[in-house]
Amino acid sequence: MKPVEVKREILRFGNGQAERLEDSIVTEFTITVKVNGEELVTMVCTPDYIEEMVIGYLASEGIIKKYTDIEDLWIQEKEGFVHVKTSRSNSIYKDLQGKRYLTSCCGASRSGFVFATDAMIAKKLHGVRTELEVEDCFRLMEEMQESAELFQNTGGVHNASLCSLFGPVVSRMDIGRHNALDKIFGHCLKNDISIQDKVIVFSGRISSEILLKVAKIGCPIVLSKSAPTELALKLADELGITTIGFIRNGSLNVYTHPERIVEANNNVIESQV
Amino acid sequence: MKPVEVKREILRFGNGQAERLEDSIVTEFTITVKVNGEELVTMVCTPDYIEEMVIGYLASEGIIKKYTDIEDLWIQEKEGFVHVKTSRSNSIYKDLQGKRYLTSCCGASRSGFVFATDAMIAKKLHGVRTELEVEDCFRLMEEMQESAELFQNTGGVHNASLCSLFGPVVSRMDIGRHNALDKIFGHCLKNDISIQDKVIVFSGRISSEILLKVAKIGCPIVLSKSAPTELALKLADELGITTIGFIRNGSLNVYTHPERIVEANNNVIESQV
Repeated sequence: MKPVEVKREILRFGNGQAERLEDSIVTEFTITVKVNGEELVTMVCTPDYIEEMVIGYLASEGIIKKYTDIEDLWIQEKEGFVHVKTSRSNSIYKDLQGKRYLTSCCGASRSGFVFATDAMIAKKLHGVRTELEVEDCFRLMEEMQESAELFQNTGGVHNASLCSLFGPVVSRMDIGRHNALDKIFGHCLKNDISIQDKVIVFSGRISSEILLKVAKIGCPIVLSKSAPTELALKLADELGITTIGFIRNGSLNVYTHPERIVEANNNVIESQV
Repeated sequence: MKPVEVKREILRFGNGQAERLEDSIVTEFTITVKVNGEELVTMVCTPDYIEEMVIGYLASEGIIKKYTDIEDLWIQEKEGFVHVKTSRSNSIYKDLQGKRYLTSCCGASRSGFVFATDAMIAKKLHGVRTELEVEDCFRLMEEMQESAELFQNTGGVHNASLCSLFGPVVSRMDIGRHNALDKIFGHCLKNDISIQDKVIVFSGRISSEILLKVAKIGCPIVLSKSAPTELALKLADELGITTIGFIRNGSLNVYTHPERIVEANNNVIESQV
Protein backbone atom coordinates (compact mmCIF):
# COMPACT_ATOMS: atom_id res chain seq x y z
CA MET A 1 0.00 0.00 0.00
CA LYS A 2 1.02 3.58 -0.62
CA PRO A 3 2.70 5.28 2.41
CA VAL A 4 0.51 7.57 4.56
CA GLU A 5 3.05 10.37 4.35
CA VAL A 6 5.82 11.37 1.96
CA LYS A 7 8.79 13.73 2.08
CA ARG A 8 8.82 16.79 -0.12
CA GLU A 9 11.13 19.73 -0.52
CA ILE A 10 9.59 23.04 0.50
CA LEU A 11 10.60 26.66 1.01
CA ARG A 12 10.08 28.05 4.51
CA PHE A 13 10.06 31.78 5.24
CA GLY A 14 10.17 33.11 8.78
CA ASN A 15 12.01 35.70 10.90
CA GLY A 16 13.35 37.37 7.80
CA GLN A 17 15.03 34.14 6.73
CA ALA A 18 14.38 31.69 3.92
CA GLU A 19 15.37 28.05 3.91
CA ARG A 20 14.92 25.07 1.67
CA LEU A 21 14.06 21.95 3.67
CA GLU A 22 12.35 18.59 3.58
CA ASP A 23 8.87 18.37 5.09
CA SER A 24 6.39 15.53 5.73
CA ILE A 25 3.19 15.69 3.67
CA VAL A 26 0.15 13.50 4.22
CA THR A 27 -1.00 11.44 1.21
CA GLU A 28 -4.46 10.86 -0.30
CA PHE A 29 -5.64 7.65 -1.90
CA THR A 30 -8.71 7.27 -4.09
CA ILE A 31 -10.65 4.03 -4.12
CA THR A 32 -13.88 3.01 -5.78
CA VAL A 33 -15.88 0.37 -3.92
CA LYS A 34 -17.66 -2.21 -6.09
CA VAL A 35 -20.24 -4.48 -4.48
CA ASN A 36 -20.93 -7.65 -6.49
CA GLY A 37 -19.33 -5.97 -9.50
CA GLU A 38 -21.41 -2.82 -9.29
CA GLU A 39 -19.89 0.58 -8.50
CA LEU A 40 -21.11 1.90 -5.15
CA VAL A 41 -18.96 4.86 -4.13
CA THR A 42 -15.60 6.58 -4.69
CA MET A 43 -13.76 7.61 -1.53
CA VAL A 44 -10.67 9.74 -0.98
CA CYS A 45 -8.83 8.59 2.12
CA THR A 46 -5.56 8.07 3.95
CA PRO A 47 -4.15 4.76 2.63
CA ASP A 48 -4.20 2.57 5.72
CA TYR A 49 -6.77 0.11 7.10
CA ILE A 50 -8.65 0.23 3.78
CA GLU A 51 -10.41 -3.10 4.40
CA GLU A 52 -11.70 -1.97 7.80
CA MET A 53 -12.80 1.36 6.33
CA VAL A 54 -14.82 -0.33 3.60
CA ILE A 55 -16.41 -2.76 6.10
CA GLY A 56 -17.32 0.18 8.37
CA TYR A 57 -18.69 2.18 5.45
CA LEU A 58 -20.86 -0.67 4.17
CA ALA A 59 -22.25 -1.29 7.66
CA SER A 60 -22.93 2.38 8.33
CA GLU A 61 -24.78 2.62 5.00
CA GLY A 62 -26.85 -0.45 5.91
CA ILE A 63 -25.56 -2.48 2.98
CA ILE A 64 -24.21 -5.18 5.30
CA LYS A 65 -25.23 -5.85 8.89
CA LYS A 66 -22.26 -7.80 10.20
CA TYR A 67 -18.75 -8.75 9.17
CA THR A 68 -19.73 -12.28 8.12
CA ASP A 69 -22.13 -10.82 5.52
CA ILE A 70 -19.00 -10.26 3.44
CA GLU A 71 -18.02 -13.40 1.53
CA ASP A 72 -14.95 -11.93 -0.07
CA LEU A 73 -13.13 -8.58 -0.16
CA TRP A 74 -10.04 -7.83 -2.22
CA ILE A 75 -8.13 -4.69 -3.04
CA GLN A 76 -6.77 -3.83 -6.48
CA GLU A 77 -4.34 -1.27 -5.24
CA LYS A 78 -2.83 -0.02 -8.49
CA GLU A 79 -6.21 0.46 -10.11
CA GLY A 80 -7.79 1.88 -6.96
CA PHE A 81 -10.66 -0.58 -6.56
CA VAL A 82 -12.02 -2.51 -3.59
CA HIS A 83 -14.20 -5.45 -4.61
CA VAL A 84 -16.76 -6.83 -2.20
CA LYS A 85 -18.69 -10.06 -2.72
CA THR A 86 -21.79 -10.61 -0.63
CA SER A 87 -25.06 -12.43 -1.13
CA ARG A 88 -26.55 -10.74 1.95
CA SER A 89 -26.37 -7.12 0.86
CA ASN A 90 -29.50 -5.16 1.57
CA SER A 91 -30.58 -3.72 -1.77
CA ILE A 92 -33.21 -1.48 -0.17
CA TYR A 93 -30.44 0.61 1.37
CA LYS A 94 -28.48 0.66 -1.85
CA ASP A 95 -31.46 2.03 -3.76
CA LEU A 96 -32.07 4.64 -1.08
CA GLN A 97 -28.48 5.93 -0.99
CA GLY A 98 -28.38 9.69 -1.30
CA LYS A 99 -32.17 9.98 -1.25
CA ARG A 100 -33.59 12.73 0.91
CA TYR A 101 -35.58 11.76 3.99
CA LEU A 102 -38.93 13.32 3.17
CA THR A 103 -42.16 13.08 5.07
CA SER A 104 -45.49 13.21 3.33
CA CYS A 105 -46.76 16.39 4.99
CA CYS A 106 -44.53 19.19 3.79
CA GLY A 107 -41.50 17.92 1.88
CA ALA A 108 -38.61 18.39 4.26
CA SER A 109 -38.45 16.25 7.37
CA ARG A 110 -39.20 17.81 10.72
CA SER A 111 -36.76 15.49 12.42
CA GLY A 112 -33.02 16.05 12.09
CA PHE A 113 -32.47 13.38 9.44
CA VAL A 114 -31.27 14.40 5.99
CA PHE A 115 -31.10 11.06 4.21
CA ALA A 116 -33.58 8.22 4.30
CA THR A 117 -31.02 5.55 5.11
CA ASP A 118 -29.74 7.53 8.11
CA ALA A 119 -33.15 7.49 9.74
CA MET A 120 -33.32 3.72 9.27
CA ILE A 121 -29.82 2.76 10.43
CA ALA A 122 -28.98 5.18 13.27
CA LYS A 123 -29.37 3.43 16.62
CA LYS A 124 -31.33 4.94 19.51
CA LEU A 125 -29.14 4.80 22.59
CA HIS A 126 -31.27 6.37 25.33
CA GLY A 127 -31.13 3.32 27.60
CA VAL A 128 -27.36 2.79 27.47
CA ARG A 129 -25.85 3.44 30.92
CA THR A 130 -22.17 4.06 30.20
CA GLU A 131 -20.91 6.78 32.61
CA LEU A 132 -17.92 9.12 32.72
CA GLU A 133 -16.49 11.66 35.12
CA VAL A 134 -15.35 15.07 33.87
CA GLU A 135 -11.75 14.07 34.63
CA ASP A 136 -12.12 10.99 32.38
CA CYS A 137 -13.07 13.28 29.48
CA PHE A 138 -9.92 15.38 29.86
CA ARG A 139 -7.75 12.28 30.27
CA LEU A 140 -9.17 10.38 27.27
CA MET A 141 -8.80 13.45 25.03
CA GLU A 142 -5.17 13.71 26.09
CA GLU A 143 -4.54 10.01 25.44
CA MET A 144 -6.19 10.19 22.03
CA GLN A 145 -4.00 13.14 21.08
CA GLU A 146 -0.87 11.38 22.29
CA SER A 147 -1.69 8.42 20.03
CA ALA A 148 -2.12 10.74 17.05
CA GLU A 149 1.37 10.52 15.68
CA LEU A 150 0.74 11.39 12.04
CA PHE A 151 -1.03 14.61 12.95
CA GLN A 152 2.00 15.74 14.89
CA ASN A 153 4.17 15.21 11.80
CA THR A 154 1.95 16.64 9.09
CA GLY A 155 -0.98 18.54 10.61
CA GLY A 156 -3.11 17.06 7.87
CA VAL A 157 -5.41 14.39 9.33
CA HIS A 158 -8.28 13.87 11.74
CA ASN A 159 -7.91 11.42 14.60
CA ALA A 160 -10.45 9.24 16.34
CA SER A 161 -10.18 6.72 19.16
CA LEU A 162 -12.65 4.28 20.61
CA CYS A 163 -11.85 4.32 24.32
CA SER A 164 -12.76 2.33 27.38
CA LEU A 165 -12.16 3.91 30.79
CA PHE A 166 -8.64 2.46 30.59
CA GLY A 167 -7.77 4.43 27.43
CA PRO A 168 -7.86 3.95 23.63
CA VAL A 169 -8.88 0.48 22.41
CA VAL A 170 -8.40 1.39 18.75
CA SER A 171 -7.15 4.65 17.20
CA ARG A 172 -7.40 5.60 13.54
CA MET A 173 -6.65 8.69 11.49
CA ASP A 174 -7.70 9.90 8.07
CA ILE A 175 -7.76 13.02 5.94
CA GLY A 176 -11.56 12.51 5.83
CA ARG A 177 -13.29 12.94 9.19
CA HIS A 178 -15.90 10.24 8.55
CA ASN A 179 -13.31 7.78 7.19
CA ALA A 180 -11.52 7.70 10.56
CA LEU A 181 -14.82 6.61 12.15
CA ASP A 182 -15.50 4.04 9.42
CA LYS A 183 -12.08 2.53 10.10
CA ILE A 184 -12.92 2.20 13.79
CA PHE A 185 -16.35 0.72 13.03
CA GLY A 186 -14.88 -1.83 10.60
CA HIS A 187 -12.23 -2.84 13.13
CA CYS A 188 -14.88 -3.43 15.80
CA LEU A 189 -17.09 -5.47 13.47
CA LYS A 190 -14.19 -7.59 12.28
CA ASN A 191 -12.87 -8.22 15.78
CA ASP A 192 -16.21 -8.38 17.56
CA ILE A 193 -15.42 -5.50 19.93
CA SER A 194 -18.32 -4.18 22.02
CA ILE A 195 -19.10 -0.50 21.47
CA GLN A 196 -21.94 0.57 23.77
CA ASP A 197 -19.69 0.47 26.85
CA LYS A 198 -17.14 2.78 25.22
CA VAL A 199 -16.59 6.39 24.14
CA ILE A 200 -15.58 7.89 20.81
CA VAL A 201 -12.93 10.61 21.12
CA PHE A 202 -12.61 12.78 18.01
CA SER A 203 -10.31 15.59 16.93
CA GLY A 204 -12.73 17.36 14.56
CA ARG A 205 -15.99 19.25 14.68
CA ILE A 206 -19.17 17.31 15.33
CA SER A 207 -21.35 17.95 12.30
CA SER A 208 -24.61 16.09 11.70
CA GLU A 209 -22.72 13.67 9.47
CA ILE A 210 -20.29 12.78 12.27
CA LEU A 211 -23.04 12.49 14.87
CA LEU A 212 -24.95 10.12 12.59
CA LYS A 213 -21.84 8.03 12.09
CA VAL A 214 -21.47 7.76 15.89
CA ALA A 215 -25.13 6.70 16.14
CA LYS A 216 -24.75 4.10 13.40
CA ILE A 217 -21.65 2.71 15.11
CA GLY A 218 -23.80 2.58 18.24
CA CYS A 219 -21.63 4.55 20.67
CA PRO A 220 -23.51 6.49 23.39
CA ILE A 221 -20.86 9.18 24.10
CA VAL A 222 -18.78 11.36 21.77
CA LEU A 223 -15.99 13.69 22.94
CA SER A 224 -14.49 16.38 20.71
CA LYS A 225 -11.98 19.14 21.21
CA SER A 226 -13.95 21.20 18.70
CA ALA A 227 -17.50 22.56 18.19
CA PRO A 228 -20.76 20.77 17.36
CA THR A 229 -23.43 22.04 14.98
CA GLU A 230 -27.05 22.67 15.91
CA LEU A 231 -28.32 19.83 13.67
CA ALA A 232 -25.84 17.41 15.25
CA LEU A 233 -27.17 18.35 18.69
CA LYS A 234 -30.77 17.93 17.54
CA LEU A 235 -29.93 14.43 16.32
CA ALA A 236 -28.03 13.68 19.55
CA ASP A 237 -31.09 14.75 21.58
CA GLU A 238 -33.25 12.50 19.42
CA LEU A 239 -30.94 9.48 19.43
CA GLY A 240 -29.86 9.58 23.07
CA ILE A 241 -26.18 10.42 22.54
CA THR A 242 -24.09 12.40 25.03
CA THR A 243 -22.17 15.11 23.13
CA ILE A 244 -19.21 16.85 24.76
CA GLY A 245 -17.19 19.48 22.92
CA PHE A 246 -14.50 22.13 23.28
CA ILE A 247 -12.39 19.91 25.52
CA ARG A 248 -9.41 22.26 25.83
CA ASN A 249 -7.58 24.41 28.36
CA GLY A 250 -9.07 22.57 31.31
CA SER A 251 -12.69 23.19 30.36
CA LEU A 252 -15.40 21.32 28.41
CA ASN A 253 -19.01 21.76 27.32
CA VAL A 254 -21.73 19.13 27.77
CA TYR A 255 -24.35 19.72 25.09
CA THR A 256 -26.74 16.76 25.19
CA HIS A 257 -27.78 13.94 27.52
CA PRO A 258 -25.70 15.06 30.53
CA GLU A 259 -27.07 12.16 32.61
CA ARG A 260 -24.03 10.07 31.59
CA ILE A 261 -21.64 12.57 33.22
CA VAL A 262 -21.38 11.84 36.93
CA GLU A 263 -20.93 15.47 38.01
CA ALA A 264 -23.88 16.66 35.93
CA ASN A 265 -26.17 14.87 38.34
CA ASN A 266 -24.92 17.09 41.18
CA ASN A 267 -25.83 20.72 41.69
CA VAL A 268 -24.90 23.06 38.88
CA ILE A 269 -24.20 26.74 39.51
CA GLU A 270 -26.35 29.07 37.43
CA SER A 271 -24.38 31.58 35.44
CA GLN A 272 -25.60 35.09 34.74
CA VAL A 273 -26.13 35.26 30.95
CA MET B 1 -33.66 32.28 5.89
CA LYS B 2 -32.71 30.31 8.96
CA PRO B 3 -30.12 32.09 11.19
CA VAL B 4 -26.48 31.00 10.87
CA GLU B 5 -26.16 30.51 14.61
CA VAL B 6 -28.56 29.85 17.49
CA LYS B 7 -28.37 30.07 21.27
CA ARG B 8 -28.51 26.89 23.30
CA GLU B 9 -28.22 26.11 26.99
CA ILE B 10 -25.15 24.03 27.83
CA LEU B 11 -23.29 22.76 30.91
CA ARG B 12 -19.68 23.89 31.23
CA PHE B 13 -17.20 22.16 33.54
CA GLY B 14 -13.82 23.69 34.33
CA ASN B 15 -11.56 24.46 37.31
CA GLY B 16 -13.61 22.19 39.52
CA GLN B 17 -16.71 24.26 38.80
CA ALA B 18 -19.89 23.58 36.87
CA GLU B 19 -22.13 26.20 35.32
CA ARG B 20 -25.21 26.29 33.19
CA LEU B 21 -24.93 28.94 30.48
CA GLU B 22 -26.07 29.98 27.02
CA ASP B 23 -23.71 29.28 24.13
CA SER B 24 -23.72 30.09 20.39
CA ILE B 25 -24.03 27.06 18.11
CA VAL B 26 -23.59 27.13 14.36
CA THR B 27 -26.53 25.84 12.28
CA GLU B 28 -26.67 23.46 9.31
CA PHE B 29 -29.11 23.72 6.42
CA THR B 30 -29.84 20.98 3.91
CA ILE B 31 -30.78 21.85 0.35
CA THR B 32 -31.38 19.76 -2.72
CA VAL B 33 -30.53 21.45 -6.01
CA LYS B 34 -32.83 20.70 -8.93
CA VAL B 35 -31.78 21.71 -12.42
CA ASN B 36 -34.70 21.93 -14.87
CA GLY B 37 -36.77 19.86 -12.46
CA GLU B 38 -34.22 17.10 -12.08
CA GLU B 39 -32.45 16.38 -8.79
CA LEU B 40 -28.72 17.12 -9.03
CA VAL B 41 -27.23 17.14 -5.53
CA THR B 42 -28.06 17.49 -1.84
CA MET B 43 -25.78 19.83 0.09
CA VAL B 44 -25.44 20.51 3.80
CA CYS B 45 -24.32 24.10 4.39
CA THR B 46 -24.40 27.22 6.51
CA PRO B 47 -27.64 29.03 5.57
CA ASP B 48 -26.35 32.25 4.03
CA TYR B 49 -25.56 33.22 0.43
CA ILE B 50 -27.37 30.10 -0.83
CA GLU B 51 -27.92 31.54 -4.31
CA GLU B 52 -24.22 32.37 -4.71
CA MET B 53 -23.24 28.94 -3.42
CA VAL B 54 -25.45 27.17 -5.96
CA ILE B 55 -24.17 29.36 -8.80
CA GLY B 56 -20.58 28.62 -7.73
CA TYR B 57 -21.29 24.91 -7.42
CA LEU B 58 -22.92 24.65 -10.85
CA ALA B 59 -20.01 26.52 -12.46
CA SER B 60 -17.37 24.44 -10.69
CA GLU B 61 -19.12 21.26 -11.83
CA GLY B 62 -19.20 22.58 -15.40
CA ILE B 63 -22.99 22.56 -15.60
CA ILE B 64 -23.07 26.28 -16.33
CA LYS B 65 -20.28 28.43 -17.69
CA LYS B 66 -21.38 31.91 -16.67
CA TYR B 67 -23.97 33.61 -14.52
CA THR B 68 -26.19 34.50 -17.46
CA ASP B 69 -26.57 30.79 -18.29
CA ILE B 70 -29.08 30.74 -15.43
CA GLU B 71 -32.52 31.85 -16.57
CA ASP B 72 -34.17 31.56 -13.20
CA LEU B 73 -33.22 30.46 -9.68
CA TRP B 74 -35.61 30.28 -6.73
CA ILE B 75 -35.35 28.91 -3.22
CA GLN B 76 -38.11 26.92 -1.50
CA GLU B 77 -36.74 27.47 1.96
CA LYS B 78 -39.18 25.47 4.05
CA GLU B 79 -38.92 22.43 1.79
CA GLY B 80 -35.16 22.79 1.33
CA PHE B 81 -35.01 23.00 -2.46
CA VAL B 82 -33.19 25.31 -4.85
CA HIS B 83 -34.65 25.27 -8.36
CA VAL B 84 -32.51 26.31 -11.30
CA LYS B 85 -33.83 26.87 -14.81
CA THR B 86 -31.35 26.94 -17.64
CA SER B 87 -31.42 26.02 -21.28
CA ARG B 88 -27.65 26.24 -21.50
CA SER B 89 -26.70 23.51 -19.04
CA ASN B 90 -23.97 21.22 -20.27
CA SER B 91 -25.39 17.71 -20.05
CA ILE B 92 -22.02 16.08 -20.74
CA TYR B 93 -20.81 17.26 -17.35
CA LYS B 94 -24.01 16.18 -15.67
CA ASP B 95 -23.65 12.65 -17.04
CA LEU B 96 -20.01 12.51 -15.98
CA GLN B 97 -20.64 13.65 -12.39
CA GLY B 98 -18.99 11.30 -9.93
CA LYS B 99 -17.38 9.22 -12.69
CA ARG B 100 -13.77 8.24 -12.13
CA TYR B 101 -11.13 9.75 -14.41
CA LEU B 102 -9.68 6.62 -15.96
CA THR B 103 -7.14 6.29 -18.70
CA SER B 104 -7.18 3.41 -21.11
CA CYS B 105 -3.82 1.95 -20.13
CA CYS B 106 -4.14 0.69 -16.58
CA GLY B 107 -7.36 1.78 -14.97
CA ALA B 108 -6.39 4.49 -12.53
CA SER B 109 -5.14 7.77 -13.90
CA ARG B 110 -1.47 8.64 -13.62
CA SER B 111 -2.27 12.32 -13.28
CA GLY B 112 -3.65 13.68 -10.03
CA PHE B 113 -7.26 13.85 -11.18
CA VAL B 114 -9.87 11.68 -9.50
CA PHE B 115 -13.01 12.60 -11.40
CA ALA B 116 -13.46 13.05 -15.12
CA THR B 117 -15.16 16.44 -14.85
CA ASP B 118 -12.33 17.84 -12.72
CA ALA B 119 -9.81 17.16 -15.46
CA MET B 120 -12.03 18.99 -17.95
CA ILE B 121 -12.96 22.04 -15.87
CA ALA B 122 -9.84 22.86 -13.80
CA LYS B 123 -7.99 25.80 -15.34
CA LYS B 124 -4.26 25.77 -16.03
CA LEU B 125 -2.78 28.90 -14.53
CA HIS B 126 0.94 28.64 -15.32
CA GLY B 127 1.09 31.92 -17.22
CA VAL B 128 -0.68 34.08 -14.63
CA ARG B 129 1.73 36.63 -13.18
CA THR B 130 0.12 37.69 -9.90
CA GLU B 131 2.89 38.27 -7.32
CA LEU B 132 3.05 38.50 -3.53
CA GLU B 133 5.67 39.27 -0.93
CA VAL B 134 6.00 37.08 2.17
CA GLU B 135 4.75 39.99 4.28
CA ASP B 136 1.56 40.16 2.15
CA CYS B 137 0.85 36.51 2.98
CA PHE B 138 1.02 37.14 6.72
CA ARG B 139 -1.05 40.32 6.43
CA LEU B 140 -3.80 38.79 4.25
CA MET B 141 -4.12 35.77 6.56
CA GLU B 142 -4.53 38.14 9.49
CA GLU B 143 -7.15 40.21 7.67
CA MET B 144 -9.08 37.10 6.65
CA GLN B 145 -9.15 35.90 10.23
CA GLU B 146 -10.28 39.28 11.50
CA SER B 147 -13.21 39.18 9.10
CA ALA B 148 -14.20 35.71 10.33
CA GLU B 149 -16.68 36.78 12.96
CA LEU B 150 -18.83 33.64 13.17
CA PHE B 151 -15.82 31.44 13.78
CA GLN B 152 -14.88 33.57 16.74
CA ASN B 153 -18.35 32.99 18.21
CA THR B 154 -18.88 29.32 17.52
CA GLY B 155 -15.64 27.67 16.39
CA GLY B 156 -17.71 25.71 13.93
CA VAL B 157 -17.08 27.03 10.41
CA HIS B 158 -14.41 27.38 7.76
CA ASN B 159 -13.57 30.79 6.38
CA ALA B 160 -12.38 31.88 2.97
CA SER B 161 -11.57 35.26 1.48
CA LEU B 162 -10.76 36.35 -2.03
CA CYS B 163 -8.17 39.09 -1.54
CA SER B 164 -6.49 41.70 -3.63
CA LEU B 165 -3.27 43.24 -2.30
CA PHE B 166 -5.49 45.76 -0.49
CA GLY B 167 -7.25 43.07 1.56
CA PRO B 168 -10.40 40.90 1.34
CA VAL B 169 -12.74 41.63 -1.60
CA VAL B 170 -15.29 39.04 -0.50
CA SER B 171 -15.29 36.79 2.60
CA ARG B 172 -17.55 33.79 3.15
CA MET B 173 -17.84 31.07 5.76
CA ASP B 174 -19.48 27.67 5.85
CA ILE B 175 -19.52 24.46 7.88
CA GLY B 176 -18.43 22.77 4.60
CA ARG B 177 -14.96 23.75 3.39
CA HIS B 178 -15.84 23.60 -0.31
CA ASN B 179 -19.12 25.49 0.21
CA ALA B 180 -17.23 28.57 1.41
CA LEU B 181 -15.32 28.54 -1.89
CA ASP B 182 -18.48 27.96 -3.95
CA LYS B 183 -20.02 31.03 -2.27
CA ILE B 184 -17.01 33.12 -3.29
CA PHE B 185 -17.06 31.75 -6.85
CA GLY B 186 -20.79 32.45 -7.21
CA HIS B 187 -20.35 35.99 -5.90
CA CYS B 188 -17.58 36.67 -8.45
CA LEU B 189 -19.60 35.24 -11.35
CA LYS B 190 -22.68 37.23 -10.40
CA ASN B 191 -20.79 40.49 -9.91
CA ASP B 192 -18.23 40.00 -12.66
CA ILE B 193 -15.23 40.21 -10.32
CA SER B 194 -11.85 39.29 -11.81
CA ILE B 195 -10.11 36.40 -10.06
CA GLN B 196 -6.72 35.78 -11.68
CA ASP B 197 -5.24 38.94 -10.13
CA LYS B 198 -6.27 37.84 -6.63
CA VAL B 199 -5.48 35.34 -3.88
CA ILE B 200 -7.67 32.86 -2.01
CA VAL B 201 -7.03 32.84 1.73
CA PHE B 202 -8.46 29.78 3.47
CA SER B 203 -8.74 28.61 7.08
CA GLY B 204 -8.78 24.87 6.41
CA ARG B 205 -6.48 22.17 5.11
CA ILE B 206 -5.75 22.09 1.37
CA SER B 207 -6.96 18.67 0.23
CA SER B 208 -7.15 17.75 -3.45
CA GLU B 209 -10.82 18.70 -3.44
CA ILE B 210 -10.02 22.22 -2.22
CA LEU B 211 -7.12 22.64 -4.64
CA LEU B 212 -9.36 21.60 -7.54
CA LYS B 213 -11.99 24.10 -6.41
CA VAL B 214 -9.33 26.84 -6.46
CA ALA B 215 -8.30 25.75 -9.97
CA LYS B 216 -11.88 25.74 -11.22
CA ILE B 217 -12.43 29.20 -9.76
CA GLY B 218 -9.28 30.17 -11.63
CA CYS B 219 -7.20 31.66 -8.82
CA PRO B 220 -3.40 31.29 -9.14
CA ILE B 221 -2.47 31.52 -5.41
CA VAL B 222 -3.94 29.85 -2.34
CA LEU B 223 -2.91 30.64 1.24
CA SER B 224 -3.82 28.44 4.20
CA LYS B 225 -2.99 28.43 7.87
CA SER B 226 -3.12 24.63 7.74
CA ALA B 227 -1.50 21.69 5.89
CA PRO B 228 -1.81 20.56 2.26
CA THR B 229 -2.01 16.93 1.09
CA GLU B 230 0.38 15.32 -1.36
CA LEU B 231 -2.32 14.91 -4.02
CA ALA B 232 -3.26 18.59 -3.70
CA LEU B 233 0.38 19.54 -4.29
CA LYS B 234 0.63 17.21 -7.30
CA LEU B 235 -2.42 18.92 -8.80
CA ALA B 236 -1.02 22.37 -7.93
CA ASP B 237 2.25 21.47 -9.70
CA GLU B 238 0.26 20.33 -12.72
CA LEU B 239 -2.14 23.26 -12.82
CA GLY B 240 0.32 26.06 -12.09
CA ILE B 241 -1.06 27.12 -8.70
CA THR B 242 1.12 28.59 -5.91
CA THR B 243 0.30 26.79 -2.64
CA ILE B 244 1.33 28.32 0.67
CA GLY B 245 0.49 26.64 3.98
CA PHE B 246 1.10 26.70 7.73
CA ILE B 247 0.91 30.48 7.87
CA ARG B 248 1.20 30.83 11.64
CA ASN B 249 3.57 32.11 14.32
CA GLY B 250 5.50 34.28 11.88
CA SER B 251 6.43 31.48 9.51
CA LEU B 252 5.00 29.96 6.31
CA ASN B 253 5.73 27.16 3.84
CA VAL B 254 5.77 27.60 0.06
CA TYR B 255 4.97 24.21 -1.49
CA THR B 256 4.44 24.78 -5.21
CA HIS B 257 5.19 27.37 -7.90
CA PRO B 258 7.30 29.68 -5.71
CA GLU B 259 7.94 31.99 -8.67
CA ARG B 260 4.96 34.12 -7.62
CA ILE B 261 6.58 34.92 -4.25
CA VAL B 262 8.99 37.81 -4.66
CA GLU B 263 11.51 36.59 -2.05
CA ALA B 264 11.61 33.09 -3.51
CA ASN B 265 13.41 34.48 -6.51
CA ASN B 266 16.26 35.62 -4.26
CA ASN B 267 18.86 33.37 -2.69
CA VAL B 268 17.54 30.71 -0.37
CA ILE B 269 19.63 29.33 2.47
CA GLU B 270 20.06 25.55 2.36
CA SER B 271 19.03 23.83 5.55
CA GLN B 272 20.73 20.72 6.83
CA VAL B 273 18.06 18.00 6.69
